[in-house]
Amino acid sequence: MQTSRTTPSRLAKRAHYDEATIHPILDEALFCTVSYVIDGQPMAIPTAYVRKGDKLYIHGSVGSHFIRSIEQGNPVCISVMLTDGLVLAKSAFHHSVNYRSVVIFAKAEKVTDEAERMEALALITDHLIPGRWNDLRPTTNSEMRKTTVLAFSLDEASAKVRTGGPGDEPEDENLPTWAGVIPMQTVRLTPVPAQNSLETALPDYLQ
Amino acid sequence: MQTSRTTPSRLAKRAHYDEATIHPILDEALFCTVSYVIDGQPMAIPTAYVRKGDKLYIHGSVGSHFIRSIEQGNPVCISVMLTDGLVLAKSAFHHSVNYRSVVIFAKAEKVTDEAERMEALALITDHLIPGRWNDLRPTTNSEMRKTTVLAFSLDEASAKVRTGGPGDEPEDENLPTWAGVIPMQTVRLTPVPAQNSLETALPDYLQ
Repeated sequence: MQTSRTTPSRLAKRAHYDEATIHPILDEALFCTVSYVIDGQPMAIPTAYVRKGDKLYIHGSVGSHFIRSIEQGNPVCISVMLTDGLVLAKSAFHHSVNYRSVVIFAKAEKVTDEAERMEALALITDHLIPGRWNDLRPTTNSEMRKTTVLAFSLDEASAKVRTGGPGDEPEDENLPTWAGVIPMQTVRLTPVPAQNSLETALPDYLQ
Repeated sequence: MQTSRTTPSRLAKRAHYDEATIHPILDEALFCTVSYVIDGQPMAIPTAYVRKGDKLYIHGSVGSHFIRSIEQGNPVCISVMLTDGLVLAKSAFHHSVNYRSVVIFAKAEKVTDEAERMEALALITDHLIPGRWNDLRPTTNSEMRKTTVLAFSLDEASAKVRTGGPGDEPEDENLPTWAGVIPMQTVRLTPVPAQNSLETALPDYLQ
Protein backbone atom coordinates (compact mmCIF):
# COMPACT_ATOMS: atom_id res chain seq x y z
CA MET A 1 0.00 0.00 0.00
CA GLN A 2 1.31 3.44 -0.87
CA THR A 3 1.59 5.66 2.20
CA SER A 4 3.81 8.66 2.89
CA ARG A 5 6.48 6.46 4.40
CA THR A 6 6.43 3.88 1.61
CA THR A 7 6.85 6.57 -1.05
CA PRO A 8 10.51 7.04 -1.95
CA SER A 9 11.91 10.57 -2.15
CA ARG A 10 13.82 9.68 -5.31
CA LEU A 11 13.41 7.30 -8.28
CA ALA A 12 9.70 6.83 -7.54
CA LYS A 13 9.39 4.87 -10.79
CA ARG A 14 11.18 2.00 -9.05
CA ALA A 15 8.48 1.70 -6.37
CA HIS A 16 5.71 -0.92 -6.52
CA TYR A 17 2.75 -1.58 -4.24
CA ASP A 18 1.11 -4.58 -5.89
CA GLU A 19 1.13 -8.14 -4.55
CA ALA A 20 2.23 -9.44 -7.95
CA THR A 21 5.56 -7.65 -7.41
CA ILE A 22 5.90 -7.93 -3.63
CA HIS A 23 4.95 -11.58 -3.02
CA PRO A 24 7.46 -13.23 -5.41
CA ILE A 25 10.32 -11.23 -3.85
CA LEU A 26 9.29 -12.34 -0.36
CA ASP A 27 8.94 -15.92 -1.58
CA GLU A 28 12.36 -16.01 -3.26
CA ALA A 29 14.44 -14.39 -0.51
CA LEU A 30 15.17 -16.49 2.58
CA PHE A 31 16.12 -13.91 5.18
CA CYS A 32 14.85 -10.51 6.25
CA THR A 33 16.27 -7.84 8.51
CA VAL A 34 13.92 -6.76 11.29
CA SER A 35 14.58 -3.23 12.54
CA TYR A 36 13.07 -1.99 15.78
CA VAL A 37 13.64 0.72 18.35
CA ILE A 38 14.63 0.56 22.00
CA ASP A 39 14.77 3.89 23.85
CA GLY A 40 15.30 5.75 20.57
CA GLN A 41 18.11 3.44 19.49
CA PRO A 42 17.60 1.48 16.24
CA MET A 43 18.37 -2.24 16.43
CA ALA A 44 18.41 -4.78 13.58
CA ILE A 45 18.37 -8.57 13.47
CA PRO A 46 18.52 -10.80 10.38
CA THR A 47 16.19 -13.76 10.59
CA ALA A 48 14.36 -16.41 8.55
CA TYR A 49 10.72 -15.88 7.66
CA VAL A 50 7.93 -17.02 5.42
CA ARG A 51 5.05 -15.28 3.67
CA LYS A 52 1.57 -16.80 3.70
CA GLY A 53 -1.21 -14.80 2.09
CA ASP A 54 -0.87 -11.23 3.27
CA LYS A 55 1.16 -12.08 6.35
CA LEU A 56 4.81 -12.61 7.08
CA TYR A 57 5.82 -14.97 9.91
CA ILE A 58 9.02 -15.18 11.92
CA HIS A 59 9.90 -17.28 14.92
CA GLY A 60 12.39 -17.20 17.74
CA SER A 61 13.16 -18.32 21.24
CA VAL A 62 10.70 -17.15 23.90
CA GLY A 63 13.78 -15.96 25.82
CA SER A 64 15.31 -13.93 22.99
CA HIS A 65 15.77 -10.24 23.78
CA PHE A 66 14.88 -9.46 20.17
CA ILE A 67 11.58 -11.36 20.30
CA ARG A 68 10.65 -9.93 23.67
CA SER A 69 11.42 -6.43 22.37
CA ILE A 70 8.94 -6.60 19.50
CA GLU A 71 6.23 -9.08 20.54
CA GLN A 72 4.21 -6.39 22.32
CA GLY A 73 3.53 -4.72 18.99
CA ASN A 74 5.83 -1.73 18.83
CA PRO A 75 6.58 -0.63 15.26
CA VAL A 76 9.10 -2.58 13.19
CA CYS A 77 10.52 -2.19 9.71
CA ILE A 78 11.24 -5.44 7.89
CA SER A 79 13.49 -5.33 4.85
CA VAL A 80 14.38 -7.95 2.26
CA MET A 81 16.84 -7.57 -0.60
CA LEU A 82 17.68 -9.76 -3.58
CA THR A 83 20.77 -8.71 -5.52
CA ASP A 84 20.50 -9.57 -9.21
CA GLY A 85 23.52 -7.81 -10.63
CA LEU A 86 26.12 -5.08 -10.53
CA VAL A 87 25.53 -2.38 -13.14
CA LEU A 88 28.71 -0.94 -14.64
CA ALA A 89 28.30 2.41 -16.38
CA LYS A 90 30.87 4.47 -18.25
CA SER A 91 31.09 6.86 -15.29
CA ALA A 92 31.44 5.94 -11.60
CA PHE A 93 28.44 8.19 -10.91
CA HIS A 94 26.03 6.01 -12.90
CA HIS A 95 27.15 2.67 -11.50
CA SER A 96 24.18 0.95 -9.93
CA VAL A 97 22.80 -2.33 -8.68
CA ASN A 98 20.01 -4.45 -10.08
CA TYR A 99 17.98 -5.48 -7.07
CA ARG A 100 14.52 -6.38 -5.86
CA SER A 101 13.77 -5.20 -2.35
CA VAL A 102 10.74 -5.08 -0.07
CA VAL A 103 10.21 -2.89 2.96
CA ILE A 104 7.34 -3.59 5.37
CA PHE A 105 6.12 -1.30 8.12
CA ALA A 106 4.15 -3.33 10.64
CA LYS A 107 3.64 -4.34 14.24
CA ALA A 108 4.07 -7.88 15.51
CA GLU A 109 0.99 -9.90 16.34
CA LYS A 110 1.89 -12.77 18.67
CA VAL A 111 0.39 -15.95 17.26
CA THR A 112 -1.33 -17.93 20.02
CA ASP A 113 -3.40 -20.47 18.10
CA GLU A 114 -1.43 -23.73 18.29
CA ALA A 115 -2.42 -24.89 14.80
CA GLU A 116 -1.38 -21.56 13.27
CA ARG A 117 1.89 -21.64 15.23
CA MET A 118 2.68 -25.14 14.00
CA GLU A 119 1.75 -24.26 10.43
CA ALA A 120 4.00 -21.18 10.52
CA LEU A 121 6.95 -23.30 11.70
CA ALA A 122 6.28 -25.82 8.94
CA LEU A 123 6.10 -23.06 6.34
CA ILE A 124 9.28 -21.35 7.59
CA THR A 125 11.12 -24.69 7.43
CA ASP A 126 9.81 -25.46 3.94
CA HIS A 127 10.59 -21.92 2.77
CA LEU A 128 14.26 -22.59 3.50
CA ILE A 129 14.22 -26.24 2.43
CA PRO A 130 11.17 -27.18 0.35
CA GLY A 131 9.86 -30.62 1.34
CA ARG A 132 11.75 -30.80 4.62
CA TRP A 133 8.92 -30.58 7.16
CA ASN A 134 7.21 -33.82 6.23
CA ASP A 135 10.51 -35.69 6.55
CA LEU A 136 10.93 -34.70 10.20
CA ARG A 137 9.64 -36.19 13.42
CA PRO A 138 6.75 -34.22 14.96
CA THR A 139 7.70 -31.14 16.94
CA THR A 140 7.20 -31.77 20.66
CA ASN A 141 5.07 -29.77 23.10
CA SER A 142 8.25 -28.79 24.93
CA GLU A 143 9.80 -27.42 21.71
CA MET A 144 6.60 -25.51 20.97
CA ARG A 145 6.61 -23.96 24.45
CA LYS A 146 10.14 -22.65 23.84
CA THR A 147 9.16 -20.99 20.55
CA THR A 148 7.44 -17.69 19.87
CA VAL A 149 5.77 -17.13 16.49
CA LEU A 150 5.06 -13.58 15.34
CA ALA A 151 2.93 -12.46 12.39
CA PHE A 152 3.16 -9.16 10.51
CA SER A 153 0.61 -7.69 8.14
CA LEU A 154 1.80 -6.87 4.63
CA ASP A 155 -0.70 -4.00 4.34
CA GLU A 156 2.07 -1.42 4.41
CA ALA A 157 4.60 -3.21 2.21
CA SER A 158 6.34 -1.75 -0.80
CA ALA A 159 8.86 -3.05 -3.30
CA LYS A 160 11.66 -1.38 -5.17
CA VAL A 161 13.01 -2.97 -8.32
CA ARG A 162 15.82 -2.01 -10.67
CA THR A 163 16.49 -4.00 -13.82
CA GLY A 164 18.40 -3.48 -17.04
CA GLY A 165 21.67 -1.97 -18.11
CA PRO A 166 23.43 1.26 -17.21
CA GLY A 167 21.97 4.68 -17.93
CA ASP A 168 24.87 6.81 -19.10
CA GLU A 169 25.16 10.52 -19.86
CA PRO A 170 24.98 11.18 -23.63
CA GLU A 171 28.50 12.64 -23.58
CA ASP A 172 29.87 9.41 -22.03
CA GLU A 173 28.24 7.00 -24.49
CA ASN A 174 31.23 6.73 -26.77
CA LEU A 175 33.92 6.37 -24.13
CA PRO A 176 35.95 3.20 -24.77
CA THR A 177 35.04 1.84 -21.30
CA TRP A 178 33.40 -1.55 -20.89
CA ALA A 179 29.85 -1.15 -19.56
CA GLY A 180 27.15 -3.68 -18.78
CA VAL A 181 25.87 -5.95 -16.04
CA ILE A 182 27.58 -8.58 -13.91
CA PRO A 183 24.70 -10.89 -12.96
CA MET A 184 24.77 -12.25 -9.40
CA GLN A 185 23.07 -15.30 -8.02
CA THR A 186 22.88 -17.14 -4.72
CA VAL A 187 23.35 -20.86 -5.29
CA ARG A 188 23.06 -23.98 -3.16
CA LEU A 189 26.00 -26.37 -3.37
CA THR A 190 26.08 -30.14 -2.87
CA PRO A 191 24.69 -31.06 0.58
CA VAL A 192 27.32 -32.28 3.07
CA PRO A 193 26.06 -35.05 5.39
CA ALA A 194 26.63 -34.89 9.15
CA GLN A 195 28.46 -37.76 10.83
CA ASN A 196 25.20 -39.30 11.99
CA SER A 197 23.84 -39.29 8.42
CA LEU A 198 26.71 -40.79 6.48
CA GLU A 199 24.70 -43.93 5.76
CA THR A 200 21.43 -42.13 4.98
CA ALA A 201 20.63 -41.51 1.32
CA LEU A 202 20.09 -37.90 0.27
CA PRO A 203 16.30 -37.44 0.03
CA ASP A 204 14.73 -36.50 -3.30
CA TYR A 205 13.79 -33.00 -2.13
CA LEU A 206 17.51 -32.24 -1.59
CA GLN A 207 18.72 -33.61 -4.94
CA MET B 1 33.72 -3.50 21.32
CA GLN B 2 31.56 -5.34 23.83
CA THR B 3 28.88 -3.08 25.29
CA SER B 4 25.49 -3.93 26.79
CA ARG B 5 23.80 -3.55 23.42
CA THR B 6 26.35 -5.60 21.49
CA THR B 7 26.03 -8.49 23.96
CA PRO B 8 23.50 -11.05 22.74
CA SER B 9 20.91 -12.35 25.19
CA ARG B 10 21.39 -15.88 23.87
CA LEU B 11 24.20 -17.97 22.31
CA ALA B 12 26.85 -15.53 23.56
CA LYS B 13 29.51 -17.97 22.35
CA ARG B 14 28.68 -16.88 18.80
CA ALA B 15 29.58 -13.23 19.52
CA HIS B 16 32.95 -11.73 18.55
CA TYR B 17 34.38 -8.27 19.11
CA ASP B 18 37.79 -8.53 17.44
CA GLU B 19 38.79 -6.88 14.18
CA ALA B 20 40.17 -10.19 12.91
CA THR B 21 36.60 -11.51 12.84
CA ILE B 22 34.69 -8.32 12.02
CA HIS B 23 36.80 -6.84 9.21
CA PRO B 24 36.82 -9.86 6.84
CA ILE B 25 33.00 -10.11 7.07
CA LEU B 26 32.65 -6.41 6.20
CA ASP B 27 35.16 -6.83 3.37
CA GLU B 28 33.41 -9.86 1.85
CA ALA B 29 29.81 -8.65 1.99
CA LEU B 30 28.78 -5.99 -0.54
CA PHE B 31 25.64 -4.52 0.97
CA CYS B 32 24.52 -3.47 4.43
CA THR B 33 21.16 -2.51 5.87
CA VAL B 34 21.12 0.86 7.59
CA SER B 35 18.38 1.16 10.23
CA TYR B 36 17.42 4.52 11.66
CA VAL B 37 14.52 6.14 13.48
CA ILE B 38 12.13 8.90 12.46
CA ASP B 39 9.60 9.98 15.11
CA GLY B 40 9.87 6.61 16.85
CA GLN B 41 9.36 4.68 13.63
CA PRO B 42 12.19 2.34 12.52
CA MET B 43 13.25 2.68 8.88
CA ALA B 44 15.73 0.52 6.96
CA ILE B 45 17.58 0.95 3.68
CA PRO B 46 19.95 -1.52 1.99
CA THR B 47 22.99 0.17 0.48
CA ALA B 48 26.53 -0.42 -0.74
CA TYR B 49 29.45 0.42 1.53
CA VAL B 50 33.13 -0.08 2.09
CA ARG B 51 35.30 -0.51 5.16
CA LYS B 52 38.59 1.34 5.47
CA GLY B 53 40.52 0.95 8.71
CA ASP B 54 38.05 1.33 11.55
CA LYS B 55 35.48 3.20 9.50
CA LEU B 56 32.63 2.22 7.24
CA TYR B 57 31.64 4.54 4.38
CA ILE B 58 28.39 4.84 2.46
CA HIS B 59 27.30 7.36 -0.14
CA GLY B 60 24.06 8.68 -1.55
CA SER B 61 22.35 11.54 -3.29
CA VAL B 62 22.39 14.83 -1.40
CA GLY B 63 18.62 14.91 -2.02
CA SER B 64 17.87 11.46 -0.64
CA HIS B 65 15.45 11.41 2.27
CA PHE B 66 17.46 8.56 3.78
CA ILE B 67 20.76 10.46 3.64
CA ARG B 68 19.21 13.65 4.98
CA SER B 69 17.61 11.67 7.83
CA ILE B 70 20.90 10.34 9.17
CA GLU B 71 23.59 12.85 8.14
CA GLN B 72 23.02 14.97 11.25
CA GLY B 73 24.32 12.14 13.40
CA ASN B 74 21.28 10.52 14.95
CA PRO B 75 21.88 6.89 15.97
CA VAL B 76 21.88 4.18 13.31
CA CYS B 77 22.28 0.43 13.37
CA ILE B 78 24.11 -1.05 10.40
CA SER B 79 23.80 -4.79 9.78
CA VAL B 80 25.57 -7.09 7.35
CA MET B 81 24.89 -10.79 6.83
CA LEU B 82 26.68 -13.48 4.85
CA THR B 83 24.78 -16.76 4.54
CA ASP B 84 27.12 -19.74 4.33
CA GLY B 85 24.70 -22.63 4.59
CA LEU B 86 21.44 -24.12 5.75
CA VAL B 87 21.86 -26.52 8.68
CA LEU B 88 19.51 -29.49 8.61
CA ALA B 89 19.09 -31.29 11.92
CA LYS B 90 17.07 -34.40 12.71
CA SER B 91 14.40 -32.24 14.37
CA ALA B 92 12.85 -29.05 13.00
CA PHE B 93 13.72 -27.37 16.31
CA HIS B 94 17.47 -27.70 15.75
CA HIS B 95 17.53 -26.52 12.15
CA SER B 96 19.80 -23.52 11.87
CA VAL B 97 21.79 -21.35 9.51
CA ASN B 98 25.53 -20.98 9.11
CA TYR B 99 26.12 -17.26 8.85
CA ARG B 100 28.55 -14.48 9.56
CA SER B 101 26.91 -11.21 10.55
CA VAL B 102 28.06 -7.85 11.83
CA VAL B 103 26.03 -5.24 13.66
CA ILE B 104 27.37 -1.71 14.12
CA PHE B 105 25.92 0.96 16.41
CA ALA B 106 27.15 4.35 15.27
CA LYS B 107 26.28 7.87 14.22
CA ALA B 108 27.01 9.29 10.79
CA GLU B 109 29.87 11.72 10.37
CA LYS B 110 29.43 13.72 7.16
CA VAL B 111 32.71 13.63 5.26
CA THR B 112 33.62 17.12 4.03
CA ASP B 113 37.26 16.76 2.99
CA GLU B 114 37.21 16.45 -0.82
CA ALA B 115 40.13 14.02 -0.98
CA GLU B 116 38.52 11.73 1.62
CA ARG B 117 35.18 11.95 -0.21
CA MET B 118 36.80 10.98 -3.52
CA GLU B 119 38.77 8.16 -1.89
CA ALA B 120 35.60 6.79 -0.27
CA LEU B 121 33.81 6.74 -3.65
CA ALA B 122 36.78 4.98 -5.23
CA LEU B 123 36.86 2.40 -2.44
CA ILE B 124 33.08 1.79 -2.59
CA THR B 125 33.34 1.27 -6.36
CA ASP B 126 36.32 -1.08 -6.03
CA HIS B 127 34.65 -2.96 -3.16
CA LEU B 128 31.86 -3.93 -5.55
CA ILE B 129 34.08 -4.34 -8.62
CA PRO B 130 37.79 -4.61 -7.77
CA GLY B 131 39.89 -2.67 -10.27
CA ARG B 132 37.02 -0.65 -11.69
CA TRP B 133 37.83 2.86 -10.45
CA ASN B 134 41.07 3.28 -12.38
CA ASP B 135 39.31 2.29 -15.60
CA LEU B 136 36.81 5.16 -15.33
CA ARG B 137 36.96 8.78 -16.40
CA PRO B 138 37.50 11.20 -13.49
CA THR B 139 34.43 12.07 -11.46
CA THR B 140 33.34 15.64 -12.19
CA ASN B 141 32.85 18.47 -9.70
CA SER B 142 29.15 18.48 -10.55
CA GLU B 143 28.87 14.76 -9.71
CA MET B 144 30.74 15.34 -6.46
CA ARG B 145 28.37 18.16 -5.49
CA LYS B 146 25.41 15.80 -5.94
CA THR B 147 26.92 13.14 -3.66
CA THR B 148 27.01 12.89 0.12
CA VAL B 149 29.59 10.61 1.76
CA LEU B 150 29.00 9.45 5.34
CA ALA B 151 31.48 7.71 7.65
CA PHE B 152 30.66 5.49 10.64
CA SER B 153 33.02 4.40 13.39
CA LEU B 154 33.38 0.67 13.95
CA ASP B 155 34.06 1.18 17.67
CA GLU B 156 30.76 -0.40 18.61
CA ALA B 157 30.73 -3.25 16.11
CA SER B 158 30.17 -6.90 16.90
CA ALA B 159 30.05 -10.07 14.85
CA LYS B 160 28.05 -13.25 15.20
CA VAL B 161 29.25 -16.41 13.53
CA ARG B 162 27.80 -19.90 13.30
CA THR B 163 29.71 -22.70 11.60
CA GLY B 164 29.55 -26.46 11.51
CA GLY B 165 26.90 -29.12 11.40
CA PRO B 166 23.66 -29.61 13.30
CA GLY B 167 23.51 -30.04 17.07
CA ASP B 168 20.90 -32.69 17.70
CA GLU B 169 19.32 -34.00 20.88
CA PRO B 170 20.91 -37.30 21.98
CA GLU B 171 17.57 -39.10 21.58
CA ASP B 172 17.31 -37.93 17.94
CA GLU B 173 20.82 -38.99 16.88
CA ASN B 174 19.76 -42.34 15.49
CA LEU B 175 16.66 -41.22 13.61
CA PRO B 176 16.94 -42.27 9.93
CA THR B 177 16.60 -38.65 8.79
CA TRP B 178 19.23 -37.06 6.56
CA ALA B 179 21.08 -34.30 8.43
CA GLY B 180 23.91 -32.03 7.41
CA VAL B 181 24.63 -28.73 5.72
CA ILE B 182 23.55 -27.28 2.37
CA PRO B 183 26.34 -24.79 1.59
CA MET B 184 25.25 -21.52 -0.01
CA GLN B 185 27.28 -19.10 -2.03
CA THR B 186 26.73 -15.87 -3.94
CA VAL B 187 28.37 -16.07 -7.35
CA ARG B 188 29.04 -13.64 -10.18
CA LEU B 189 28.03 -14.87 -13.62
CA THR B 190 29.48 -13.93 -17.03
CA PRO B 191 29.34 -10.15 -17.56
CA VAL B 192 26.75 -9.02 -20.13
CA PRO B 193 27.89 -6.03 -22.22
CA ALA B 194 25.63 -3.02 -22.76
CA GLN B 195 24.78 -2.00 -26.34
CA ASN B 196 27.40 0.74 -26.27
CA SER B 197 30.10 -1.75 -25.22
CA LEU B 198 29.56 -4.58 -27.67
CA GLU B 199 32.85 -3.85 -29.37
CA THR B 200 34.83 -3.26 -26.19
CA ALA B 201 36.89 -6.16 -24.87
CA LEU B 202 36.11 -7.33 -21.34
CA PRO B 203 38.84 -5.85 -19.12
CA ASP B 204 41.17 -8.17 -17.20
CA TYR B 205 39.69 -7.20 -13.83
CA LEU B 206 36.30 -8.57 -14.96
CA GLN B 207 37.58 -11.87 -16.35
